[in-house]
Amino acid sequence: MKFVTAQIHSEEFIGILYENKVIDLHKAEKEIFELTSFPATLFECVALGDKFIQDVQQIVDKIKIDGSEGYLYPLEEVKILAPIKKPTKNIFCVGKNYREHAIEMGSEADIPSHVMLFSKAPTSVIGHLETIDPHLHITNELDYEGELAVIIGKTGKRISEADALDYVFGYTILNDITARNLQSQHKQFLLGKSLDTSCPIGPYLVHKSAIPDPYTLSVKTRVNEELRQDGHTKDMIFSIEHIISTISQGTTLEPGDIIATGTPSGVGKGFKPPRFLKPGDTVEIEIDGIGTLKNVIGEQM
Amino acid sequence: MKFVTAQIHSEEFIGILYENKVIDLHKAEKEIFELTSFPATLFECVALGDKFIQDVQQIVDKIKIDGSEGYLYPLEEVKILAPIKKPTKNIFCVGKNYREHAIEMGSEADIPSHVMLFSKAPTSVIGHLETIDPHLHITNELDYEGELAVIIGKTGKRISEADALDYVFGYTILNDITARNLQSQHKQFLLGKSLDTSCPIGPYLVHKSAIPDPYTLSVKTRVNEELRQDGHTKDMIFSIEHIISTISQGTTLEPGDIIATGTPSGVGKGFKPPRFLKPGDTVEIEIDGIGTLKNVIGEQM
Repeated sequence: MKFVTAQIHSEEFIGILYENKVIDLHKAEKEIFELTSFPATLFECVALGDKFIQDVQQIVDKIKIDGSEGYLYPLEEVKILAPIKKPTKNIFCVGKNYREHAIEMGSEADIPSHVMLFSKAPTSVIGHLETIDPHLHITNELDYEGELAVIIGKTGKRISEADALDYVFGYTILNDITARNLQSQHKQFLLGKSLDTSCPIGPYLVHKSAIPDPYTLSVKTRVNEELRQDGHTKDMIFSIEHIISTISQGTTLEPGDIIATGTPSGVGKGFKPPRFLKPGDTVEIEIDGIGTLKNVIGEQM
Repeated sequence: MKFVTAQIHSEEFIGILYENKVIDLHKAEKEIFELTSFPATLFECVALGDKFIQDVQQIVDKIKIDGSEGYLYPLEEVKILAPIKKPTKNIFCVGKNYREHAIEMGSEADIPSHVMLFSKAPTSVIGHLETIDPHLHITNELDYEGELAVIIGKTGKRISEADALDYVFGYTILNDITARNLQSQHKQFLLGKSLDTSCPIGPYLVHKSAIPDPYTLSVKTRVNEELRQDGHTKDMIFSIEHIISTISQGTTLEPGDIIATGTPSGVGKGFKPPRFLKPGDTVEIEIDGIGTLKNVIGEQM
């Protein structure tokens, strides 16, 4: 199941991909079951967990038998928004979680012995095809970081590694856009990672049932169609289970929490000389089983 | 004006201090003006800005003339909660913003040249007199940090230093409880700063009109009544105006955002040997014009 937050005729809705179309879940539920049980946002639906998935499955099964056009839109006619448009806390991000990336950012000494965690402000979130502000007045070192992101599905604390994937709702793609000059000047990463529009997410939130093994995914980032990052989730230093368990030892995780799992090598800063983003550049991140998240760097806003 | 989020007879309300009593703002407005215009939470009221202050002033003026007991509670009968119980993003925190504290954490080399910004997860927030979980299973280096916190009152981006205080709604006290072992092991501060119950805030949210100059405040932290931190806001390295302006150059600030402005010297880690917190310890932070935020370290939860 690939979920979307989307818009058609200026109206926002939550949907699910179905044979190159998007099912408007509210409309479909109402028409098929004469029910309006789904919350308004995907963020709230995630918190319903298995109940939500079962209800959606019933709708999809019914549509397979006798689909109506009233709640099915061609994918190309809808505007995709960020699956979770406004998280209610900062996005958890793992730094240097791929060996070759840690080295390209410095040296072997930069390979972390413990999960490195920082955050991005929720105001930085945008969706697929939305424009990234270059923030030229404060940076000329804007960089991309293609990452697999985990969406937490239920509240948990002191979660064991063995249980960790039970707390995952699904996966999406995240571009951890970073102003490298701010990242280094301010020591702690928050500021250089929290610029408005610096957190494209999407296009789809894929339920975990479609990705039974999250360590089988290639992560590719292209800038203007040139392959820059060609990584694979099997190369993570700290597993998703370890990351979830580590955070939750002291910090309660909640439904809708987003954890970006780190980026493989090939970021702009890793090139000699560095190859940072500039207005007009297109960044595409492709992850197996999820899709492609595409954004363009705009002119100065 | 000193605002509170509080509870009486299991019911939560927003109030304002008035001669050792607390005015229940919703009840008072209804009784005096037959109106129910205030939002449910202080977080939402903050977003109303001057309009909210004017409406509250009208209520207070009216009570001065003919006060009723129906909406006035003795302060000692109410339970004070965190003024903003669940922020909708992480708390912005400034690291090493007092020279002597930067030195006690390392050496003169630790005095920052740019504002150091990290964050605490919203799940860490508790109120005055609530219990701090010692998290003994992951740390034996729990430390206190008494700080002046700024509450943002309106949305702003690219705010100049000259305009910055216009974006402040008011001030409160914040204890930036830190697990020092996690802070250093994980390099980035997020994890060691985001343990559940590690962010006591309060007791009052003081409107800025009561604190015309935020650089005239002493900040005192006592552990079991022993004075540990005896700082003064005039000694901040980076001013509140500079912090607000710096963040907002790329990151939109929003009403209800909380910015902790850094702690003066005297934290537990600064002693030789270090003096960390243990179950049963009482931590009190006193800031002129705001009050005293008191919390006890509990037994392992």
